[in-house]
Amino acid sequence: MEQDNNTHIVIMAGGIGSRFWPMSTPDYPKQFIDVMGVGKSLIQLAVERFSSLCPLSNFWVVTSEQYVGIVQQQLPEIPLDNILAEPEARNTAPCIAYACWKIKCRFPNANIVVTPSDALVIDVIGFRKVIAQALSFTQERKAIVTIGVKPSRPETGYGYIKTFSSSIKNEVVKVEAFKEKPNRKVAEDYLADGHYFWNVGIFVWHVNMIMEAIRKYTPELARVMDNMSLSFYTDDEKRVIGELFPTCEKISIDYAVMEKAKEVYMLSAEFGWSDLGSWGSLHSLLPQDMDGNSAVGSEVRMIDCAGCVVHTSDERKVVIEGLKDYIVAEKNGQLLICRLRNEQMIKEWGR
Amino acid sequence: MEQDNNTHIVIMAGGIGSRFWPMSTPDYPKQFIDVMGVGKSLIQLAVERFSSLCPLSNFWVVTSEQYVGIVQQQLPEIPLDNILAEPEARNTAPCIAYACWKIKCRFPNANIVVTPSDALVIDVIGFRKVIAQALSFTQERKAIVTIGVKPSRPETGYGYIKTFSSSIKNEVVKVEAFKEKPNRKVAEDYLADGHYFWNVGIFVWHVNMIMEAIRKYTPELARVMDNMSLSFYTDDEKRVIGELFPTCEKISIDYAVMEKAKEVYMLSAEFGWSDLGSWGSLHSLLPQDMDGNSAVGSEVRMIDCAGCVVHTSDERKVVIEGLKDYIVAEKNGQLLICRLRNEQMIKEWGR
Repeated sequence: MEQDNNTHIVIMAGGIGSRFWPMSTPDYPKQFIDVMGVGKSLIQLAVERFSSLCPLSNFWVVTSEQYVGIVQQQLPEIPLDNILAEPEARNTAPCIAYACWKIKCRFPNANIVVTPSDALVIDVIGFRKVIAQALSFTQERKAIVTIGVKPSRPETGYGYIKTFSSSIKNEVVKVEAFKEKPNRKVAEDYLADGHYFWNVGIFVWHVNMIMEAIRKYTPELARVMDNMSLSFYTDDEKRVIGELFPTCEKISIDYAVMEKAKEVYMLSAEFGWSDLGSWGSLHSLLPQDMDGNSAVGSEVRMIDCAGCVVHTSDERKVVIEGLKDYIVAEKNGQLLICRLRNEQMIKEWGR
Repeated sequence: MEQDNNTHIVIMAGGIGSRFWPMSTPDYPKQFIDVMGVGKSLIQLAVERFSSLCPLSNFWVVTSEQYVGIVQQQLPEIPLDNILAEPEARNTAPCIAYACWKIKCRFPNANIVVTPSDALVIDVIGFRKVIAQALSFTQERKAIVTIGVKPSRPETGYGYIKTFSSSIKNEVVKVEAFKEKPNRKVAEDYLADGHYFWNVGIFVWHVNMIMEAIRKYTPELARVMDNMSLSFYTDDEKRVIGELFPTCEKISIDYAVMEKAKEVYMLSAEFGWSDLGSWGSLHSLLPQDMDGNSAVGSEVRMIDCAGCVVHTSDERKVVIEGLKDYIVAEKNGQLLICRLRNEQMIKEWGR
């Protein structure tokens, strides 16, 4: 049943958040955790962020089969039909295609935003304006709009979008190229250049536009989706998805479509965005005491500590003395104490 | 009913172990904890240590009312009648007097060892020999025998026993004086002198001898005990103890009796004794890895750490990176991370 509001939000929530062990584990990853200590998980914050744009019945979550129960529990207002379970992770292109093909079934005029579930936005009002602007752009013309955040540092952890013209804030400009995560030197050049923006993984498009682009640039993926779609909203859907979805090539939407498509635009924005990709980024976003410590937990006492980030879930009382620039994280019977500068090792330790 | 074996062991188990927070808490203190990670609590190790000397029906535990359940659970072989509950802590003299008066009731010829519950002995065989020697000494003559450990360092955390003659190992000698915990300078003098030994709080005496000494040097305490004893082994015991025991003066056995009595002897011994009074002493007693780390816990991984002591109870997986000379302790929803050199603060933090 088509609604008056043809905006749809697709939230990708299949990540396992291994860089945040032990707060985040494959059983209960980052997007489902109250990382900021505000009483809401990251995916709940994401839904809230978009909630002014369309009714919750227009929200879609694509996630791993094992997280479907968590999504239902945390987001009970989202219709069960709108929670799409990937039988296995095949990167973003199959994930997005699945959502768009399914939306097309019942909402053939859908204007879609695709977003990650585990990023953080500080200026939610500004963010909503940017998304609304992108949606009205794709409503009016055949275009793919990405959101580009003006870089504030030579970040090597993100991909970049290069624009033809030196974009100004809140202006839609043509994209010249998508760039993989750069090394430090290249990232510094990008920052100085002024034509490069952080690719935050938010895409806006009309359902017809993205399906057309996938058919054109990744015909094999489109073929699998066409076959899958025969089962949508039937009792056979789960079985068919289980059979066909894993046959999709593991490929990112950037590589499958964005880098090849012609009508790709970018809307540049500054809304205090973070992918919360590391303890360091979390540390910088949480409120800090006078010694630069940030703590999430019920009763955390820090004595003679500086520059630490503490995140405890199960502990009722925590005393930390004499640590400088450390991560202390505890959850579900697992404890990590390590220097912030060595956090790239956490992924391995948590295995 | 008198047994053939007239040896009785009195274990004092009323301490709250506040220097070991959060491993030890007033709800479940040190003596009931598997501090060494050997699968047995300190009090279980204490019972085991004495178990060759007499049957378990000759063991007595004096503890706080709130720990009676824990004692029963951890030491089910000890008769319930032999677990004596102090309605409130009144230091060691009333505690010991209560046990001795009660033992006298049914075992008028008892030869008694009094011991703390929370110390550690490395050479258990040597220890048993020393205790047996002391017991045969007090069996044959009217004497109080204390155990003195030859000091290996100028320890300021223990009281000292001064002997008249420069004692040799496994020899019973006359005691000249009991000394309070010394300052560093005095402790160094004691160590150099050769007449000073650590008072480890183990006393051996015949029940008649200690009762006589208490009557002589602390008549008021003896009077309360005489009144209490009318209720022993009756339904009225708990009520009477609850009423009378708190009227005892708070006084240590050293001060009440030992410092005044004439026939006081010491048996000097070297059996690897520690009162486990601090995280530092635990650290030095636990097995250490090549970097001087010692860890008790199910899965503790230490990377680039040195000189640390780790004790976790609830955690299933612990990763610690980049710490030097720290304590990491976790139990029952409470977590402590602090430098070993600041451990004197723990008592306060744990409140």
